[in-house]
Order: sequence, then C-alpha cells, then structure tokens
Amino acid sequence: MSPRAPREAPGAPTIVDVARAAGVSKGLVSLAVNNRPGVAEATRLRVLEVADQLGWRPNLQARTLSTQTTYALGLVLRRDLRIVAADPFYPAFMAGIETVLTEQGRVLVLSVVGDEAAEERAYRTLAADRRVDGVFLNDLRHDDRRVPLLVELRIPAVLLGRPDGDAPFPCVVLDDAAGVTAAVHHLVDLGHREIAHVGGDPALLHARHRRRAFEEAVAERGLVPTAVVDTDFSMTQGAAATAALLAGRTRPTAIVYANDPMAISGLGVLQEAGVDVPGEVSVVGFDGTETARHTHPPLTTIRSDPQEWGAAAARTLLTLTASGSAPDVELAPAELVVARSTGPAPPARST
Amino acid sequence: MSPRAPREAPGAPTIVDVARAAGVSKGLVSLAVNNRPGVAEATRLRVLEVADQLGWRPNLQARTLSTQTTYALGLVLRRDLRIVAADPFYPAFMAGIETVLTEQGRVLVLSVVGDEAAEERAYRTLAADRRVDGVFLNDLRHDDRRVPLLVELRIPAVLLGRPDGDAPFPCVVLDDAAGVTAAVHHLVDLGHREIAHVGGDPALLHARHRRRAFEEAVAERGLVPTAVVDTDFSMTQGAAATAALLAGRTRPTAIVYANDPMAISGLGVLQEAGVDVPGEVSVVGFDGTETARHTHPPLTTIRSDPQEWGAAAARTLLTLTASGSAPDVELAPAELVVARSTGPAPPARST
Repeated sequence: MSPRAPREAPGAPTIVDVARAAGVSKGLVSLAVNNRPGVAEATRLRVLEVADQLGWRPNLQARTLSTQTTYALGLVLRRDLRIVAADPFYPAFMAGIETVLTEQGRVLVLSVVGDEAAEERAYRTLAADRRVDGVFLNDLRHDDRRVPLLVELRIPAVLLGRPDGDAPFPCVVLDDAAGVTAAVHHLVDLGHREIAHVGGDPALLHARHRRRAFEEAVAERGLVPTAVVDTDFSMTQGAAATAALLAGRTRPTAIVYANDPMAISGLGVLQEAGVDVPGEVSVVGFDGTETARHTHPPLTTIRSDPQEWGAAAARTLLTLTASGSAPDVELAPAELVVARSTGPAPPARST
Repeated sequence: MSPRAPREAPGAPTIVDVARAAGVSKGLVSLAVNNRPGVAEATRLRVLEVADQLGWRPNLQARTLSTQTTYALGLVLRRDLRIVAADPFYPAFMAGIETVLTEQGRVLVLSVVGDEAAEERAYRTLAADRRVDGVFLNDLRHDDRRVPLLVELRIPAVLLGRPDGDAPFPCVVLDDAAGVTAAVHHLVDLGHREIAHVGGDPALLHARHRRRAFEEAVAERGLVPTAVVDTDFSMTQGAAATAALLAGRTRPTAIVYANDPMAISGLGVLQEAGVDVPGEVSVVGFDGTETARHTHPPLTTIRSDPQEWGAAAARTLLTLTASGSAPDVELAPAELVVARSTGPAPPARST
C-alpha cells in the first residue's frame, strides 16, 4: 500500500453533503462548526446535528487554518531514559491528560529528551512547526529557563507546581509538603529520633520542597536530621544512599524517601543486609504507587494523584488556549498512607 | 498573553533570506529542502547549508502541503489506566521511539484509550485529521480487528510482533518464547518438578506466546504444569493468582510470571505468607526491569529490550512511510537473567 494515497474512505461525506442535508451554504457550515459569529443558534445546532448524523467532521488542516488552532497539546519530558522507565508518575499523569483530550478530539504530542540543549530544541521545533496550542511545563526548576523561552516562543503553558520566580502562566499545584510533614510526625510519634531523608534531584523544585518540609518538620519536633542525601531520583541512587546510611556512624531508625522507586530499592538494600523493616528501620515512600501496595511489607507512603493532576492541567491548558487566561488550580494535598513498613522505633542502642 | 498571536520570533529568517544568501530562487529553495528532483546536488547542499546557518526551516504546514507528510507518528495505547501506571514497558518503548524521531525533527502523537470503541475512534480521528504518517500497532490480539481498520483508513503501520493472520504491514519481532523456555529448563535443572505459570491477558498474542512456550518447555522435560493461571497483567491479579497457588492442593515450588510487576507482587504475597524465596518457592519474572534488580532477593527474569524495540519500530515505520515498504525486523530474543529469586527445589514433601 502507498502511504501517500489520499486517506478519505471512498464515499466519505463532504461539507457539500452536510450543506445540502442541512439546507444551508458550505460557508455557513464552516462558520457553524468553527463556532464563528453570523450563524443563528438554531441553525448552528441543526448543522452540527446533520454533520454528526452523516459522520462528517471538518478537515483538521482546514480547521487549523480557520481557527489558528492545532488541537494538540505538548509535553516535553527531560529525563534520563533509565529513570523514565522506572518512574510511575508519568504514565499516570499522561493518562490523566488523555482522559480530557480524548473527549475533546485532541491529541498529546510527546517528546522525550535527554538534556537541556535537546529540550530547548524540542520547544523551538514545536513552536516553529506550530505543532501544539500549548505545553505542560513539568519538573519545575530553580529560576527555570523554560519560562522565558516559552514567553519568547509565545507558547502558552501550564505549570505543574508553583515556580520560584515570576511566570505569566497558570499553575496547577499539588502540595507535597503536607504529606512529608505528616510522615515525620508519624515517625516521631512512634518514638523515632534518628530519621534520615533520601531526597531527589535538588535541581527540581519538588525535590527541594520535600526536603525542606522534612527538615522543618524534624526541627519542629526538636530533632536534627540524622542525614539528608540528595539523589537523581533513580532506584540505583536510592539503593546507594541507603547503603551509605547503613554504613554511617549513626544508623537511622527511619528513612523518608522522596519517591516510591527509591523506597523500594532502599527496602531491598535493608532486607538484603538482614535489617528488619520495620523492626529495626522504618521506611516511608512518596507517590502512593501500585507497587508500594505489593511489597513485603507494604510501604507507608505519601499518596498524590498524578492522574487527577494530569486531568486538571489539561483542563487548565485548554481554558488558557481558548480564552487567553486561566485561574490557578490547587489540588488536594499529598496524603500520608500508613502501611506496615513503619513501626515503633527500636530500643535505643549505642553506636 | 494571547495564544493566538503569530509565533514567529521577530526577525526570524524567511525563505527569501535563504534564497538571497544562497543566490537562488525561492522555488529552488523549496525544491531543495523537500528533496525534489530538478536541483543539482551541489546546489541542494549549498541551500541546506545556508538554511542551517541562518536557522531557517520550512514551515511545517508548507512542508505538509508540499510533501503530504505530517512528520508525526502515532501510538494508541489501549490499557486500563491502573495497569499503564505500573507497566514499565511503555515508558521505555516510547523513549526508544523518541531517540529516533527526535533526531529527525519528528514527533510522537500519543493516545491512551480505555476500551475497544474508544480505540477505533482514536484511529479514525487520526486518519480523518491526517494527524500522523503512520502508527505503531502494539499488543497484537488474536484476529486483530485493527489490521483491517488501518487498511480501510489507509494508515501505514508497523506491527510489534507477528500477527496470527495476514497483515500487509511490516513486523518488528522480539521473540519472547526463547527466554521462557530457558527459564523452565533452568528450573527443571534445579530439581523443580512442580512449576506454575502466572500468565498475562490471553486476549494478547504475546501472553499466549509466553504461555505456550511455558507449556511446551514443561512437556519437553516430561512434566505437567502444576497450574497455569490467566490474568490481566496487573500487580493485583498477579498477587491474587499467587495466593490461589499457595492455597491450592499442590503447591508449586517455582512460579514463572508473564511480567515483572506480577512477579514482584507475587514475591510480596509469598513473603507476607512466610514463604522463603527461593528456599521454598523460586520466582521468575519477565521484562528485566530496573525494579527487578532491586527487590529482595533480586529477581531472576527474562530480559527484553523495549527501548531498542521502540527504536527499531520507529526506523521501520519511517522507512515504510518514506518508501511504501519496509522489511520485517527480528530483534535479539528475550534472554534469561539468573539472579537470586531462583534456587534448588526444596526436598519433596507430601501435601
């Protein structure tokens, strides 16, 4: 088969068929389906009904020319491929975006890039090609260079989280600090005094928020963190950080991880070393993933809702691209879910 | 900011600038960049060099009109959202696709759909909107209805695996049977006689292949499977199947799972029940995921290469859309990776 053959099925309805069946002109059909002024509402509804009955929809290129809309939204993921594969956040987040786009006949254009230069090229190409009506800006960074880039490129964006500088874009915010704070109080209430944090990539604002929430909650209870370790969010670095904590001068009796994959690899390191969880060390994850419910023991974790985050971000971006502005959205905060990887602190011992 | 403002940066180079700098006509620039006949090779190279120096690239809409190419490929995932989130295959597979598309300035258009009706609508919309030049057909099913649908819609496709009927599309095949066969031999060599299989969704050909390879390898060694259980590939059903096997009349001493997420939830069920892995029950996964390397004990699993699969599929689909045909590709088969979740069979006991 030739991929360049015209793709209309033979006998597919055309705008002429719709115009004839609705008893109006072709031009009026076009105005009606593009929601332009100059068409009585009753006529518009009749045209849409006839188009629907005949199974006709305006050609995308024609709609794009007449509305300057591509009916597509973009997501550029800059992630180490190894981390993307183990990260349960993005599949759920994208699935949430899709629930909104699909019902509107819109699509998601995805790019996965390995470094900052490739990321900038990806946004410039999306803009030059007018490929999308707007983009989702994820994994916000300190003083994020993508914000002025998108302003320069005139691409509307929705931010996932609150930026640490000015940005002329709406934010969809899910507060993760509350869950981390609750986790620390839960551990201190169980008698833990030596609590460590295996943090994420400090270049990312959400990793900083989790770390700061951890440090503040520990201080609030009159304690000092046993250790705080930064990582790249990967299972490998989560495992390495855990091994380092085990070998350290003061072994923590509880570890709060910045994501579930690291908590799971940390659990593996502890158990491989013969350390009982939670008898000797309690473990807290972050994400509330499916996998965390199936480990032995099941993980105490901090549950966010990446699917709802994706859906809310998609709704906000569609509002923005349609009307030029959209309000910020604050989602339900991340929530501590206690399972069996946390328990009473072991009796104090000298090290 | 207005999302409908024109998106060219002020002072951006135009085709006129390129024509002037290269000393040729606008028409010749267009022929040259679209790789059309009628341009001397030296001239074509000079035009491309000048365009590159000036940072000019032809407008996507103009290229699409002149070449009937959208420079986009499509992937429609039909998956329960819960399973998508825990499935490490797709992020790695998509990342592999992206490594090829990005270097060619092309994009991936993604749709995630929940059921067959939505899936058909998604393909029809991609076709009606001429949104993509071709699609990846994943999760092949018995007598797959998407094959005639794509033929009807005249969308070129590449199949991930070999279909069980005729299909006028090239296939990119990764044989998973070899790895399952090797796993069974590994277990029998370790003395196991009671081996069970927790299979995937029997509607999917790759789940059937894994199951058939399991059954044939067991028979080849003169044994009968202790049990074969079908699932939907989810961690939840993997856990339930494992619990059922534990409660069955004959408890298996080894379980071969059709994916790593189910092997991981199965491992959790076994350990929660106080069953030693591998002392009492050996566990084999399938995928070779990052997570499988970090469990306690690390999982023996069957490693495929979803990223290379994505890259090979993207190269094949680009060849197909450019030239109208492409050869089938056979990738390196999935391979058994022995870790510590498999060990000698326990001494026989009566049940």
